[in-house]
Amino acid sequence: MTAPVPADVMSRLKAVLGEGGWSQDPERLAPKLLEWRDRWTGTTPFLALPKSTEDVAAVVGICFEAGVPITTQGGNTGLVGGQIPQGEVLLSTERMRAVRDLDAFDDVVVAEAGVTLAAVHEAAAGVNRRFPVGLASEGTATVGGIVSTNAGGTQVLRYGMVRSLVLGLEAVLPTGEVWNGLKRLRKDNTGYDLKQLLIGAEGTLGVVTAAALKLYPVMASRAVAMIGVESPRAAIELLARAKEETGGAVEAFELMGRLGVDFALKNIAGTRDPLAEPHPWYVLAEFSSGEPGSAEAAMSRFLEAGLEAGLIRDAVVAQTDAQAKALWAIRENQSPAQKPEGATWKHDVSVPVSRVAGFLERATAAMQAFAPGSRIAAFGHMGDGNIHYDVLRPDGGDDAAHAARRDEGSRIVHDIVAELGGSISAEHGLGSMKTEEARRYKSAVEVATMAAIRASLDPKRIMNPRVLF
Amino acid sequence: MTAPVPADVMSRLKAVLGEGGWSQDPERLAPKLLEWRDRWTGTTPFLALPKSTEDVAAVVGICFEAGVPITTQGGNTGLVGGQIPQGEVLLSTERMRAVRDLDAFDDVVVAEAGVTLAAVHEAAAGVNRRFPVGLASEGTATVGGIVSTNAGGTQVLRYGMVRSLVLGLEAVLPTGEVWNGLKRLRKDNTGYDLKQLLIGAEGTLGVVTAAALKLYPVMASRAVAMIGVESPRAAIELLARAKEETGGAVEAFELMGRLGVDFALKNIAGTRDPLAEPHPWYVLAEFSSGEPGSAEAAMSRFLEAGLEAGLIRDAVVAQTDAQAKALWAIRENQSPAQKPEGATWKHDVSVPVSRVAGFLERATAAMQAFAPGSRIAAFGHMGDGNIHYDVLRPDGGDDAAHAARRDEGSRIVHDIVAELGGSISAEHGLGSMKTEEARRYKSAVEVATMAAIRASLDPKRIMNPRVLF
Repeated sequence: MTAPVPADVMSRLKAVLGEGGWSQDPERLAPKLLEWRDRWTGTTPFLALPKSTEDVAAVVGICFEAGVPITTQGGNTGLVGGQIPQGEVLLSTERMRAVRDLDAFDDVVVAEAGVTLAAVHEAAAGVNRRFPVGLASEGTATVGGIVSTNAGGTQVLRYGMVRSLVLGLEAVLPTGEVWNGLKRLRKDNTGYDLKQLLIGAEGTLGVVTAAALKLYPVMASRAVAMIGVESPRAAIELLARAKEETGGAVEAFELMGRLGVDFALKNIAGTRDPLAEPHPWYVLAEFSSGEPGSAEAAMSRFLEAGLEAGLIRDAVVAQTDAQAKALWAIRENQSPAQKPEGATWKHDVSVPVSRVAGFLERATAAMQAFAPGSRIAAFGHMGDGNIHYDVLRPDGGDDAAHAARRDEGSRIVHDIVAELGGSISAEHGLGSMKTEEARRYKSAVEVATMAAIRASLDPKRIMNPRVLF
Repeated sequence: MTAPVPADVMSRLKAVLGEGGWSQDPERLAPKLLEWRDRWTGTTPFLALPKSTEDVAAVVGICFEAGVPITTQGGNTGLVGGQIPQGEVLLSTERMRAVRDLDAFDDVVVAEAGVTLAAVHEAAAGVNRRFPVGLASEGTATVGGIVSTNAGGTQVLRYGMVRSLVLGLEAVLPTGEVWNGLKRLRKDNTGYDLKQLLIGAEGTLGVVTAAALKLYPVMASRAVAMIGVESPRAAIELLARAKEETGGAVEAFELMGRLGVDFALKNIAGTRDPLAEPHPWYVLAEFSSGEPGSAEAAMSRFLEAGLEAGLIRDAVVAQTDAQAKALWAIRENQSPAQKPEGATWKHDVSVPVSRVAGFLERATAAMQAFAPGSRIAAFGHMGDGNIHYDVLRPDGGDDAAHAARRDEGSRIVHDIVAELGGSISAEHGLGSMKTEEARRYKSAVEVATMAAIRASLDPKRIMNPRVLF
């Protein structure tokens, strides 16, 4: 827990922020101090509500001078606790909601930190463009948050993480200085690419106040299929074929085990079994193309060849948007559908795509040995090698007993991931939850390098001090 | 000029590198001390020829301890002098030529720093994949070089700069420590993305010793057209339409003025005028698709709509590979075709795509005022907002007189670029040539931030000390 904020610092913060620019009202603070899955609760002596970059600069400058730590929060949808203060000043971007610019020739939207992802989608659609980041939390997640955590989502396979969608950034550095890197250039080789450091820094190198985000054309054709397969190995082979068949136009290639589909059928009203018979594993594949009819044609060729090669057991192609949505809902409900099933150890891991099957085999064998009877619900962005590997308590087992073994069990999973050259946090970040765990898997030189960079920009370590190295 | 290298350091370097691992032979050194366009010559007391990452670590470690500066060189194809030592130890990666791994499931090739771009292309083709970086110098340019300079090329519009094609890096840091970040993950959110700092750092933060590079599927269809247009404004509108029409499948969208085409016709044997009549400006557009026939169909629709809208004066679509090559040759010969025309001020600038026309209009008016009669040959990657803006001496004018005014003329061009929110080095980097010039256009906070990061990793500033901030 952080030291108390001196009274004079508090007064100065209040003075620069003005009325409506701060709060100490417990009711106003409460929703910002509770992580949405109830796994973290926090405290803060002071909520700063800047409405402009200048406000943010003033707040950070005062805190830097006094050595008072700050935690920055966007939509509070993070999954690793990085946004929940433990006594720090809490800086919320909720009042910074301007879309500063939108240009279909430059394919760019310039949005302030507090703009929601849904608002970005809406702005893009207004000029016949799209911003290809899809998150379940898009109505709440903010630009500042998705940039600071380098968010992933369902379209990474084709468009990359948020990192690859940022053309420029504006940020307040830990000293309170404003860095204006809000360019909208596709090419700029004039020194270190500072925005790359801020992206994914989880608020430790400054406060992202605005971003210039890349837009893409809307697609003329789209094809969604649910495919039953024997094993993840078959899915990997299909993925390689899909990429070849479409010339890289695979938008999504998601994997799910049958157990997760069963959970959705049982626990999510309105879910229908997508294929006539159950299959051990499912792939949800989406192709898209700028050419009318092209995605559908590629999907037909792909499925036919996969059936012929014995890689596909059965498949269905969505004939309408409603059918496509219903198929996607099965995938999107994988996590919610687990809730009624009791305690879970959740993992957000990645391995090289070629090793997804090996990972699943090894991890599942290890879990059955360590926690016999536990139920494995594995699903995720197979096209990126990113698996959400969830280990649920045995059917009818004891929640507390299962939860108590989480750290030990996760360690086994993470060790296997590390042996396969993988990452223990593919898209969620480290936050408060995984920073210590990550030290185990990083080389001393890597941790020291990150710490040296951080110290060079934030010598008093005031920005999100609990998070990262 | 750098201080002499102490004799004991030299002895230690010779001992760790062994026979064949170093040279002081002037003949052996000569080609590495001359920039290929003869604009920079250098000196070095010692050429280190490491054959492994361990060798590099030993060399850098010895130099760090002694505070002896190092310049790293790959294929020596850089255009801004960053690779030419001025008294530093010269570390060449020419003996580090192993392709360590190649995997079509992971879509990755792991290549050492000295592997040429052409060798990467060849390796990728061997597993039916491609590495989408096209440079005129690909037979000589190396992996270490294209990563360290974040190279661009003709396929950036669709695939991004080299930055977006790197999955992992191995590097020797300025202290001589080896950082193994040679992952092949599509997603890894576990702290700062250190590889992003090394990419484009022009050798100032360490020596890149190997890279895991992203591969892409081979395309089933491809369409190349040369299009005559009235103005850059028409070209910008066409670009927006091309992106919409193809759903983002535009591989290249290159702009050239008629003067450059005239130079090619006059100075490059075998060049044919691409269209029946001359046009003020030309666009070379290439579409590709994974769907057979799709690129051709999109090109037809695009050209037809452009003609109808009055944006296209005339166009020709290549019917054979040979025709496509001939059209591309006109674009690729834009720079060589200038040579016989005398002294030139060359600029590698970028602006937001929407401002390319405005830039060309303003810059050309300014040049005609400043250097009446000078000939403007503008061409480049319009899809990226990247223009190679070359100002040639007047026809029959004096080379020396024109060359003498280069700095002053370039300043005018760069000021206009800066006013338009652009970059004075879109893809070539800053090197020895543009570092000082870049200070004029960067904020103090940006320069200070870069310098702080550099000092945190290279406190003795031994790596490429002449380059960057």
